[in-house]
Amino acid sequence: MDQSNLKTNCIIAVDAMGGDKAPHDAIIGALDALNNGNIFNLLLVGRKTEILDVLKNNNLSFPEENIINANEIIGMKDSPTAALKTKKDSSIVVGANLVKDNKAHAFVSAGNTGAMMAASILLIGRIPGVGRPTIGATIPTETGTGCTIYDVGASVDSKPHHLLEYAIMGSLYAKEISGINNPSVGLLSVGEEDSKGNKVTLAAFDLLKNTDINFIGNIEGRDILKGKVDIVVCDGFVGNILLKFAESIMGLLKAKIRNYADASLSNKLKALVVKGTLKDALKDMDYQAYGGVPLLGINGISIIGHGSSTPLAFKNMILRAYEMHRKNLLNKIEGSIKNYAEQKKT
Amino acid sequence: MDQSNLKTNCIIAVDAMGGDKAPHDAIIGALDALNNGNIFNLLLVGRKTEILDVLKNNNLSFPEENIINANEIIGMKDSPTAALKTKKDSSIVVGANLVKDNKAHAFVSAGNTGAMMAASILLIGRIPGVGRPTIGATIPTETGTGCTIYDVGASVDSKPHHLLEYAIMGSLYAKEISGINNPSVGLLSVGEEDSKGNKVTLAAFDLLKNTDINFIGNIEGRDILKGKVDIVVCDGFVGNILLKFAESIMGLLKAKIRNYADASLSNKLKALVVKGTLKDALKDMDYQAYGGVPLLGINGISIIGHGSSTPLAFKNMILRAYEMHRKNLLNKIEGSIKNYAEQKKT
Repeated sequence: MDQSNLKTNCIIAVDAMGGDKAPHDAIIGALDALNNGNIFNLLLVGRKTEILDVLKNNNLSFPEENIINANEIIGMKDSPTAALKTKKDSSIVVGANLVKDNKAHAFVSAGNTGAMMAASILLIGRIPGVGRPTIGATIPTETGTGCTIYDVGASVDSKPHHLLEYAIMGSLYAKEISGINNPSVGLLSVGEEDSKGNKVTLAAFDLLKNTDINFIGNIEGRDILKGKVDIVVCDGFVGNILLKFAESIMGLLKAKIRNYADASLSNKLKALVVKGTLKDALKDMDYQAYGGVPLLGINGISIIGHGSSTPLAFKNMILRAYEMHRKNLLNKIEGSIKNYAEQKKT
Repeated sequence: MDQSNLKTNCIIAVDAMGGDKAPHDAIIGALDALNNGNIFNLLLVGRKTEILDVLKNNNLSFPEENIINANEIIGMKDSPTAALKTKKDSSIVVGANLVKDNKAHAFVSAGNTGAMMAASILLIGRIPGVGRPTIGATIPTETGTGCTIYDVGASVDSKPHHLLEYAIMGSLYAKEISGINNPSVGLLSVGEEDSKGNKVTLAAFDLLKNTDINFIGNIEGRDILKGKVDIVVCDGFVGNILLKFAESIMGLLKAKIRNYADASLSNKLKALVVKGTLKDALKDMDYQAYGGVPLLGINGISIIGHGSSTPLAFKNMILRAYEMHRKNLLNKIEGSIKNYAEQKKT
């Protein structure tokens, strides 16, 4: 989408019906994002009567013409691709169509992740030249800088040139949006040596080393939390499994501490200190705080939030969408992908 | 190898030169395994003079004819396949050849993992019918039962029928050696639904559902630590990355607690309690305690230990090798793999 004509007037559509505490948390977070003096137009997409109720109950004023009615909801258990066809009046389909029809620059949703991905890819479409859009997730590191993994589930069976695309798009996002100067990129593999990997990563290695990306070579599973690189590139099958595994670690820790506490009274007292301290010490392990992840490579800004997104998470997602628009990220991605394609030809 | 003629007299060879504190820890652990009233013959492989020194310094008596001299050592940084050719008098090559030549049933080493894998596969060889040997690693779960992941690095680019082999061998090992009745097997994927996965797992799913393996279907990254299954089956590329990631979690926790402690004196005091308590509560997260992992599908018993193996880890590895021999596991694997191959034909 050529965004130049809309640039002075950024329009962000938010799925009011997405998330565990919808529409309340989505609306509260969205209006809070507006209150920070940010100059953009907000559209709330969903059941108008429910949205108006939340606004009234919270004494919030919001222009009624900016509420885009959508009567249906794609549930968390709906099949994504089927729902796109059968629930055309759902908040996700209506919201994605706003971007498709140039009526909004960005769409933000904490609803059904698969449906949001499918709507973005199938309705809004890809940036010209991009083979596979990618979804990145940032996880905490020992260094405190965080590390973003691309791809964590937009696609599986990635080809080598898709991994190159993830590196290009991830690098641009890190530089422009996260403010990381010369972000480093590692290719996730089973050994640090150039010769280690599977067929796809070995071929991707050769593509990556011939770019001006700050590619440091292969990294191993143990290097991620150490913060060895800013960006990890891998197939979505690997990234998705890794991310879900990482998200389950706190559950294991809690269970172990619970068992420990049950053994004696002195253990119980120590466990109380541990629980409080861990919560404090590990607060940036709260994936929630990062507030959603962008789907890069889509020809419009698409931000996907966790089902458990709080008002703060919604606010962060919306501000991120705004920043992506302000920095003209989509055009930069298109230009960069085009550049590499031309280099390949020569 | 037909082990029937050797069965009454189990012979276990141990690489005395493998591990960070070799030969001391390997020798102490090995002789401790013998002291538990276990009836097997122990062979110590390595530099005879160094082995004799350790025995003497620790007032241990051990028959000198059971020391198999090997003058070279494959270092942790040596290239595995190159070292097999250039260091023929290394403890790993000499030890693996003992099994190959029917002079030992088992070989246990905490030396260079890649070299140990290569020596096992190339020198000892595979069980007839096995396409790809596999290495499993057990990680702790919320339920406390542990979960073993196959494969964690013996091979990458596994074909669907290799994943089936991992499930067959892993199930037999769990039943016979770990004493798990009817062990459950999950196929690691990006969603629980049968339709989720990449090309290889989708095809493997179809193979697995037509067996008498206790296959519960796809599992996700978040299900592993929850203890949803006894055995996780995946390609070695995924498993290796996941295992190394899991092993790095304690490092992140320690770094976060260190940062927390640095913030104030009261934090420092709390962090002390946390450190001690976590150590206690998480002691079964100590991968070390599991004492090495078997390489299944090799036509001889091959156990690979972590470089940091303690005497206890060596002892556990040796007792595991002994149990594998006692239960005649290799013949059972051969029979089971053959069965499935015949079923496929009909």
